[in-house]
Amino acid sequence: MKNSFLIIILIHVMAAVSAKENTIEEKIINMEKAALERWYQGDPMGFIELSANDVSYFDPYLENQLDGLNALTKLYGSFRGKVQADRFEMTNIKVQATKEMAFLSYNLLAYTNNVVDKWNGSEVYRLKPDGKWKIVHTHFSMTQPIMKE
Amino acid sequence: MKNSFLIIILIHVMAAVSAKENTIEEKIINMEKAALERWYQGDPMGFIELSANDVSYFDPYLENQLDGLNALTKLYGSFRGKVQADRFEMTNIKVQATKEMAFLSYNLLAYTNNVVDKWNGSEVYRLKPDGKWKIVHTHFSMTQPIMKE
Repeated sequence: MKNSFLIIILIHVMAAVSAKENTIEEKIINMEKAALERWYQGDPMGFIELSANDVSYFDPYLENQLDGLNALTKLYGSFRGKVQADRFEMTNIKVQATKEMAFLSYNLLAYTNNVVDKWNGSEVYRLKPDGKWKIVHTHFSMTQPIMKE
Repeated sequence: MKNSFLIIILIHVMAAVSAKENTIEEKIINMEKAALERWYQGDPMGFIELSANDVSYFDPYLENQLDGLNALTKLYGSFRGKVQADRFEMTNIKVQATKEMAFLSYNLLAYTNNVVDKWNGSEVYRLKPDGKWKIVHTHFSMTQPIMKE
């Protein structure tokens, strides 16, 4: 009897731990981290694989908002092998998810030879009809760009 | 009989026009435009009234993502009467809405004495339990900031 009770408790604890790891918020953060890992090893295709056909995109080098996965693939293709960092950190992470849409925002710190490159990052993810979460909007900007100069 | 038919057609047309004006996408764009109108007349409180208690916020002057409406109210309070423009344009507008969350992104051009100030803007709106759409995340950055220097 005592053992059955312990087993039931154990099952509930395992389910709770498993549920925590599988919240939409956790999933989104993990997908973003995995894409950033590839990004800082010179492989921008992690973000392309995560992005939806109707993605829109801002970075500080563009004059206008970029429209669609084809344009983003072309842009990121030109970055292949060029972006590297020893390590990165996501800080001040904010994430909110609903059933069909979620956003993730964070400060991104990329370290190379003890020099830190600071970014502000915002992503909007949307649950697509095939059941996969995809990025529909990306906005990266430099943290305090004018002070950097 | 002919008249009844015409009245039914008219009702359908009116309903269609009304529905178009009341899509979530239209509503979000109109709320943002109204807040920008006030912003460029030196009144940042339009954005404060639109923002949720749990808003998070990036602009290019901050070192870290700002957290919550109290902090944003304090920041925007310091801008009161200081931000002015003759006129502004929202271009390359992208908007996607689900039942509970929406995002809006656009290039913002603010003109003062024929000088243009260019911004990249992204907002995430969320439908709150009181039935009002509120901003839960704001990211404004300068368009091509380094080229500006």
